[in-house]
Amino acid sequence: MKEVTIIGAGLTGLLLSILLEQRGYIVKIYERSTDPRRHLLKEGKSINLTLCTRGRSALHKAGILDKVNKLCVASYGRCVHPIDSKMQIQPYGNFKEALFSISRRELHLLLLAEASSLTNISIFFEHKCTGYDLEKSIIFFETKHDQIKEQSFQTLFAADGSYSGIRYQMQRNRGFNYSQFYSLHANKELTIPAHKVKEYKLKENHLHIWPRGEFMIIAFPNPDSSLTCTLQLPNESDGFSFNNLKNEADLLRYFNKYFPELILLMPNLVDDFFQNPEIPMMTVRCSPWYISDKILLIGDAAHAIWPSYGQGANAGFEDCEILVDLIENNQNDMNATFEQFQKLRKPSADSIADLSEKHFHEIRSLVAIPNFQLRKKLERKMNTIFPSEYFSLYCRIAFSKIPYQVAVEQEKTYSKIIDELLTKEEILSNLDSDQSLQTIHDVYNRHMK
Amino acid sequence: MKEVTIIGAGLTGLLLSILLEQRGYIVKIYERSTDPRRHLLKEGKSINLTLCTRGRSALHKAGILDKVNKLCVASYGRCVHPIDSKMQIQPYGNFKEALFSISRRELHLLLLAEASSLTNISIFFEHKCTGYDLEKSIIFFETKHDQIKEQSFQTLFAADGSYSGIRYQMQRNRGFNYSQFYSLHANKELTIPAHKVKEYKLKENHLHIWPRGEFMIIAFPNPDSSLTCTLQLPNESDGFSFNNLKNEADLLRYFNKYFPELILLMPNLVDDFFQNPEIPMMTVRCSPWYISDKILLIGDAAHAIWPSYGQGANAGFEDCEILVDLIENNQNDMNATFEQFQKLRKPSADSIADLSEKHFHEIRSLVAIPNFQLRKKLERKMNTIFPSEYFSLYCRIAFSKIPYQVAVEQEKTYSKIIDELLTKEEILSNLDSDQSLQTIHDVYNRHMK
Repeated sequence: MKEVTIIGAGLTGLLLSILLEQRGYIVKIYERSTDPRRHLLKEGKSINLTLCTRGRSALHKAGILDKVNKLCVASYGRCVHPIDSKMQIQPYGNFKEALFSISRRELHLLLLAEASSLTNISIFFEHKCTGYDLEKSIIFFETKHDQIKEQSFQTLFAADGSYSGIRYQMQRNRGFNYSQFYSLHANKELTIPAHKVKEYKLKENHLHIWPRGEFMIIAFPNPDSSLTCTLQLPNESDGFSFNNLKNEADLLRYFNKYFPELILLMPNLVDDFFQNPEIPMMTVRCSPWYISDKILLIGDAAHAIWPSYGQGANAGFEDCEILVDLIENNQNDMNATFEQFQKLRKPSADSIADLSEKHFHEIRSLVAIPNFQLRKKLERKMNTIFPSEYFSLYCRIAFSKIPYQVAVEQEKTYSKIIDELLTKEEILSNLDSDQSLQTIHDVYNRHMK
Repeated sequence: MKEVTIIGAGLTGLLLSILLEQRGYIVKIYERSTDPRRHLLKEGKSINLTLCTRGRSALHKAGILDKVNKLCVASYGRCVHPIDSKMQIQPYGNFKEALFSISRRELHLLLLAEASSLTNISIFFEHKCTGYDLEKSIIFFETKHDQIKEQSFQTLFAADGSYSGIRYQMQRNRGFNYSQFYSLHANKELTIPAHKVKEYKLKENHLHIWPRGEFMIIAFPNPDSSLTCTLQLPNESDGFSFNNLKNEADLLRYFNKYFPELILLMPNLVDDFFQNPEIPMMTVRCSPWYISDKILLIGDAAHAIWPSYGQGANAGFEDCEILVDLIENNQNDMNATFEQFQKLRKPSADSIADLSEKHFHEIRSLVAIPNFQLRKKLERKMNTIFPSEYFSLYCRIAFSKIPYQVAVEQEKTYSKIIDELLTKEEILSNLDSDQSLQTIHDVYNRHMK
């Protein structure tokens, strides 16, 4: 029988286990944490999750998209709340494209239930992997009460996340390139309860953003109409930052200045702020992801990214889909599979890592800048004029399965087109005039030749 | 009494211990290896070392430069041996500037003897540091026979090299940015014995370079007239590389094609090649280098670099000089010292890391290209015309104490001047004509305004 071992029963590890079991593998999963079904997850431990085309495609492949959909709230665009002007609605696309907001915990529990229901998947919780011996094909664990345990393996998938223990050991190998890069900002979970959403008539089925330059709040809709919010704030600074918001008075002064309406919308603001942890953002870039046909890093373990583009879990799920396709194409030859997987997927991972760092800065400030609005409007217009050709970068990342790096490469041409159009008098004065339409066609065709 | 603990009795750790002891500190050094005085170092374990102004200045500060000088051979320039043209001599400067070639082992033993002779330095060998507990100010060691040992510390300097164990633990701290980046090439030590140097009349008091594009050999003079050589070769490639030079026939075919004269000069070539290890090159960039007033990374532990610019040990020694100056200025306030040290030194470390990666490619190929020769000649000419102002980048790195990043910054202007001059007909035809002299003055003054 074909056997595989997975380290980590997080989102990526669980989806991978299901896809592999469906293809005839016996799967053992080892997870350091306790079984999440046996306890309530600490609130505020991770920012919300939005599923997009990439993640949904992989869930569909595993046959569980319908179940997942029932837990999701569709978001068709962003409601931007500038400090000193009116709220603006920015749809993601012209064709009702939507992000699907879902609770990380509920998605996790669903995947766990699915995996547990399959005959050939065994999950071992409270098994902290402490390392491996490649020559002997053994993994070491600490279990409850510090017991040491060994386990042999044939093929090991390290889906053990951003702080992957397997990767820490691989880092000691000669030739292993590695970098971890932290944002100067951290995230803090806050909540707008359902009754406040209704009372203040916040638009439903949209993300809400309060961009304020050096910091911002972003809110994701839940099925019960409440909004789970994330405050992004510098860890340290001379201005407002986590290190100098020390008490209730500091916090309220800060919110009064930058988010006055949110004081009304967040009755638990003070408790949430001082009880929930600050969650850092770290990009991990490394290579090679694999050792012969023995070990493969996957998901965050291979390419942790900042959450700003909403692609972390989606990229991990897309990894799973691409990987099992390669395993099938290569008739279970893991050596060929791992080599091809890295070749295909590493440029994608690098692209989305770069983009997430870049977008983090964009989303906090540019979304509230007038020219940014016009640019987005022009992009949507372009998409109506060339509906099968032109999509904004955001759409190609979130609503297509084009490899990330291809989407970024295409953007070089597209952004030149938009830049040029934004210098034209007719575009600036009336985007919808016949003259503008003619200009758009001229410029587009010249660049796309 | 003021006490400090140093992890690592390598070059940087030992020099630091001496400088601190001289300033009234009681110093304990813990080193994972056995006492090098008790055994012969494995040959071929590290490439040669050249001391330049930065390293020599720090050794002078410790009062041991005279002793070190006795172990050195001065090298006044490079002898370049192209594959298909005559040998060229490239002096480093116009004023007998020299690199001082020294055996790493002999320098190490000298520093060890000096440190051991000082009352307030204790050195503990075979103490492998396995981690620290910051709150309790304790370090953990494995000693001989796997005994576990704890030791309290006040201030800890991690001079434990490129693969620093202290840094591996710091890497787990939130906000610790880190990268390790390997060259695709590795190094292999080879030897030209003294009698061959004499027989073939190889120029003394010079480095010798056989540049061959994708690979090269560089040779450093020893006091006994022998040359210690380093072969730089890709680890893997379709052409010649370490992974496909598998036997004597492969090796000789390779040398016959690219280094035919060296087959005669290296009677031990085959044994050296197949017995000596391949030594990788790794750049380490990280930040922050310190934790409060408790721990500071220094030398390779903070900023390992590729050896191509000959600055690894020199940068570590310069760290020591700058650090003890700061400790004095701050009257032993380590908190202020560590903050200032990183602020001063991190941009320097980043600059020399970048430059060493860049120079690695330059030295393998450009040194043998005609325009590169003319450029070097022009740079030396410029230095004679403006002897107190203009120095080549190489001279500013090797023969000055200008911070690395300032030297690199200055080069932006200087290289524009050289680039422009190299387009001038008169410069290309006769560098020493009156017209050329006038042009040099004109261009230089215009750029330097």
